[in-house]
Amino acid sequence: MDIRNEIPARDIERYFSKALEFSVSARSLILSLLTSGFEVKRKPDNSFVTSADLRVEEYLRELIRRHFPDHGILGEEYPPTNPDAPFQWIMDPIDGTEDFVQRLPTFGSILALHYRGEPVVGLLDHPALDMRVSAAYGLGAYHNGRHVALTDLDPAALDGTERVMLPARANFIKYRDDGRLFDALVRAHPNHRIYRSCFTHACAVTGQADAAVDYGNPIWDFAASRILIEEAGGKFVLVREWNVPSLGRVYGSVMGKPALVDRLVDEFGAR
Amino acid sequence: MDIRNEIPARDIERYFSKALEFSVSARSLILSLLTSGFEVKRKPDNSFVTSADLRVEEYLRELIRRHFPDHGILGEEYPPTNPDAPFQWIMDPIDGTEDFVQRLPTFGSILALHYRGEPVVGLLDHPALDMRVSAAYGLGAYHNGRHVALTDLDPAALDGTERVMLPARANFIKYRDDGRLFDALVRAHPNHRIYRSCFTHACAVTGQADAAVDYGNPIWDFAASRILIEEAGGKFVLVREWNVPSLGRVYGSVMGKPALVDRLVDEFGAR
Repeated sequence: MDIRNEIPARDIERYFSKALEFSVSARSLILSLLTSGFEVKRKPDNSFVTSADLRVEEYLRELIRRHFPDHGILGEEYPPTNPDAPFQWIMDPIDGTEDFVQRLPTFGSILALHYRGEPVVGLLDHPALDMRVSAAYGLGAYHNGRHVALTDLDPAALDGTERVMLPARANFIKYRDDGRLFDALVRAHPNHRIYRSCFTHACAVTGQADAAVDYGNPIWDFAASRILIEEAGGKFVLVREWNVPSLGRVYGSVMGKPALVDRLVDEFGAR
Repeated sequence: MDIRNEIPARDIERYFSKALEFSVSARSLILSLLTSGFEVKRKPDNSFVTSADLRVEEYLRELIRRHFPDHGILGEEYPPTNPDAPFQWIMDPIDGTEDFVQRLPTFGSILALHYRGEPVVGLLDHPALDMRVSAAYGLGAYHNGRHVALTDLDPAALDGTERVMLPARANFIKYRDDGRLFDALVRAHPNHRIYRSCFTHACAVTGQADAAVDYGNPIWDFAASRILIEEAGGKFVLVREWNVPSLGRVYGSVMGKPALVDRLVDEFGAR
């Protein structure tokens, strides 16, 4: 039995509708920070962090605490709240911070609710693109409010024209050198697009990409993705996981149209 | 002496202002076609063409003919007009047609005016992103009407964090197998982004990318790019050219901040 069936349906509806409200508010804040400006710093691992990342996470944490004081909160920029609670809100307030700093519009804002480790609600919002995907367990997946349902590919049509979105080679060499895996994937799927953000996951949900691959991500980077993909009729697979000192567990993931996900999972298995 | 100095300054201003008008009108048409819908077909080489590509090129050709009847016109979808005229308008009405078909917002619209082979006016417009870069000889480069000036990189800072935008590996194997060149570039510059459109060129003009590389392009794909990059204070270099039967001459190009362009040109030379 799926443990999520323990949650009353009207609670799932309420969590979904509140998560949407939080996402709408966070988008307004992000757009206002893009206009007013923000401070940019480097973290010890040389990645970017801005005063906007911190401000948006504080804001979302405050909204969640006010509405769901007994739920846990896990985010990129602050320590966990209520880490043993069955319900956990997981967020990356600005994913693709370097793109955000450069005003490249593909950065996104990630928000998810998990119940005992299983995803219940997922949202990926792209404020600069006016593109939001949302889903909740049993309630379907949506792109700007319109229902989305993926159509699978014919495995025989996987001839190199399939549209695969990947992260940069940098992601495959950041924590350990898996660069050859990147090289094999771009050889097998030369009609790729490469972004460093959850925009790739969102495009796999809508079908604008046939599949997305991500690599070396902490849980907040993909916390919303499995429920989104599964509710859209696609497939989500964690293909790798390992520990990174001072960061914790990171993962590789494949998501999208099932026939292509199966092919990509095989390609991971072969390396 | 630069042959473009033969053109009276007020003529350059007039061409620039007309080109901007044409681009504004083309954007409106493209956005209305995105809403109303369009037909999608495959060309003999399996690339996409839509009724929107044809409609926008017809529209731009008509505008140019009306204002500059003795100028030439060269575009992707129709035969050349006045091929021997000293002034040539060169266009790709929708660059990144596959992305346009998928409603990925990075597709662009390219329009340039050349005089005896030298670029005088260049525009790259991204209707879905509200992002237009424009430049004219001696008049500077602009991003949504604001002047842009690139700051060069310190060559010592080229440590793999520099932001390089590339086309997909598909571009490097479409006409002949230069896939190893792609592999070498993504190894040398792992913090890349990959798009299949002139969006990469536009980001090199604004500095949102430190440099852009393109490969296997007919002239209309980069006709606007050299004047844009040079007027922004950057460097544009054609690094490769060869003939493709039934298509004609295609090129490889590198553009952006001079120190990084020099490095990339060296990397092309080494292969």
